[in-house]
Amino acid sequence: MTASPAQPYDFDPTNPIFVAHEGGKVGYVATKPLNGRDDLSKLYTPGVAEVCLAIAADESLSDVYTARPVAVISDGTAVLGLGDIGPKGAMPVMEGKCVLFKHFGGVEAVPIVMESGSVDEIVEAVARIAPTFGGINLEDISAPRCFDIEERLKERLDIPVFHDDQHGTAIVTLAGLINAAKVVGRPLQEMRVVVSGAGAAGVAITKLLALEGVKDIVVCDSRGILGPTRTGLTDHKQRLVAATNPRGLAGSIDEALRGADVLIGVSGGTIGEEHLMEMAEDAIIFALANPNPEVHPDVAHRHAAVVATGRSDFPNQINNVLAFPGIFKGAMESGASAITDQMKVAAAEALAAMVPEPTADEVVPSVFADGVADVVAKAVADRAPQR
Amino acid sequence: MTASPAQPYDFDPTNPIFVAHEGGKVGYVATKPLNGRDDLSKLYTPGVAEVCLAIAADESLSDVYTARPVAVISDGTAVLGLGDIGPKGAMPVMEGKCVLFKHFGGVEAVPIVMESGSVDEIVEAVARIAPTFGGINLEDISAPRCFDIEERLKERLDIPVFHDDQHGTAIVTLAGLINAAKVVGRPLQEMRVVVSGAGAAGVAITKLLALEGVKDIVVCDSRGILGPTRTGLTDHKQRLVAATNPRGLAGSIDEALRGADVLIGVSGGTIGEEHLMEMAEDAIIFALANPNPEVHPDVAHRHAAVVATGRSDFPNQINNVLAFPGIFKGAMESGASAITDQMKVAAAEALAAMVPEPTADEVVPSVFADGVADVVAKAVADRAPQR
Repeated sequence: MTASPAQPYDFDPTNPIFVAHEGGKVGYVATKPLNGRDDLSKLYTPGVAEVCLAIAADESLSDVYTARPVAVISDGTAVLGLGDIGPKGAMPVMEGKCVLFKHFGGVEAVPIVMESGSVDEIVEAVARIAPTFGGINLEDISAPRCFDIEERLKERLDIPVFHDDQHGTAIVTLAGLINAAKVVGRPLQEMRVVVSGAGAAGVAITKLLALEGVKDIVVCDSRGILGPTRTGLTDHKQRLVAATNPRGLAGSIDEALRGADVLIGVSGGTIGEEHLMEMAEDAIIFALANPNPEVHPDVAHRHAAVVATGRSDFPNQINNVLAFPGIFKGAMESGASAITDQMKVAAAEALAAMVPEPTADEVVPSVFADGVADVVAKAVADRAPQR
Repeated sequence: MTASPAQPYDFDPTNPIFVAHEGGKVGYVATKPLNGRDDLSKLYTPGVAEVCLAIAADESLSDVYTARPVAVISDGTAVLGLGDIGPKGAMPVMEGKCVLFKHFGGVEAVPIVMESGSVDEIVEAVARIAPTFGGINLEDISAPRCFDIEERLKERLDIPVFHDDQHGTAIVTLAGLINAAKVVGRPLQEMRVVVSGAGAAGVAITKLLALEGVKDIVVCDSRGILGPTRTGLTDHKQRLVAATNPRGLAGSIDEALRGADVLIGVSGGTIGEEHLMEMAEDAIIFALANPNPEVHPDVAHRHAAVVATGRSDFPNQINNVLAFPGIFKGAMESGASAITDQMKVAAAEALAAMVPEPTADEVVPSVFADGVADVVAKAVADRAPQR
């Protein structure tokens, strides 16, 4: 669990990126005026004791009389594509995420980074500080630890817990696929889907596609197809084998892609053009590795009718920010005790419906489209389980 | 470690105190503009990766490019005089403390409440999330756990760790005593001091007075004088016995107060007038229990030349807010790795010096006096050990 040895980095403080980060990106402010002794005795002692006693008698009042922000929590073990750079190295991403929560969803969020450790240790630490928060967004925690950490926190806590690298990506991917299927005129449920990458995003996308009714999903990791002939698999990959690959394929990704309708790249690696030759007519390629897609969009277009990436400089940007601000906005405003699979599907369908006439160049709304978070929030809130 | 059973509380949402608390008192805001894709790519992916890499290579850059607020941390086990009301019940106090940090010291602070647990568990949780913060203000944690929790965190972390119930109170008390001694015209170091209360504040006041050179301190708990004849004492009370009571007194507080120059009440109990009869001429009484002083100021004045309380409606309010905003301001701005005893004494002396001609009715500056935090910050920063 030790962070990778620090790599030397020759930084230039005049770079506009660094200038934009001076002092950090999150501020902590007082929301109530403090003008003299009267305010002081209301907001602090002795008056505050009344609010303490009221909450101690009825904890639900903490939702009304304290701030209860979302915590954006990471142990810095899988930050962007940079790997294990430690908690302090991860903080700029967590602060950035809080900025996006506020900007796009009006959701107050506070970044928390922690020393890494075992699943037990991370679960204990997050659960212990959980009374502070109205929801927990886990971020950039390495697989397969992230799966157990999220599952165990969901069991323990009665507030929403959401690992965005899994579910945020899965929700926006599903939204894009729903519309891509419309563009090519075939039902998504009947398509053969190949997921390249069995990390956080790959696992969550596979689960969400199955929930949406997609029956033929084949997942590949760096050693090829996950299927019954593979040995030495981790628990979460064994579960993937059990839940996918109905035709019992084995071998390299080439085998998986033969006749496949959809390729979803969430591997961080590259996929050469030669592997794409035998995909089905009017295929769909989502190459989501960032900043370098597994397949360059220009190449992908030679073999697919619809192409999406994680990049803002090509059409069809599959960006988590389309999902997480609205997901938490809806969950928090509705007092949800959890973010369920049904809420995730509802979010994806609502996002897809924001593009009423999808085209090959527009399968998801723009990140800056008006009202995205509100639409997602409403869809999510309508299906929220209550504490 | 279970919170006390919740007491029923008949709360009135129209009470101005509750109105003032609606939505909580701390806000989380973005400090950088996010106007379109350019800002997004600087503040978040892909640009943010540069800042992450720079910090991963040199952690000290996190002070420059991330916010690193002070954490105001409590487990809710000793909140004000209310006892163990749990983390959510404690939150309004922690939010209030953050408001005071910002208002009086310009220090950004974030409230964190946690489920209580053993010393080990609290230390582990705080240490794990410590990379988030520039300093840690522990608050309202029950004695004697608070002593070990603070000591162990100080050993483990290279950022300031400060238990305000101990040291904030001790610093302001020492400041007041320095000036009260001037008022009565006797050297503080030669005075006989009785501390009634062996909890967080009593222990810290005793330590700080000893550091200031006071030689004759007698501490009393609810069973009387802490001295060599007492048995069954906790570790921290045994340490008090070893460090105090040079004349080997035993018995009730009456024995301690016979001929005493100073009584400091930090017990939360009451001390009847009959106990004060045999104090020295021109005695000093600091009755700091809040909201009900151990001795009413009117009664105390019949036996003492200088009287202070924790209340704002009498002269000489001994209020932690005179200390903690400036303490952390000075520690953070100077990059201090800890808040040392020398820094605490310097803070007390600087506070005392803000009242150049102390009188019986003015031994400490007003909470709202201009520049208090700056004066304290400068004194503290000048003595700060560096990371």
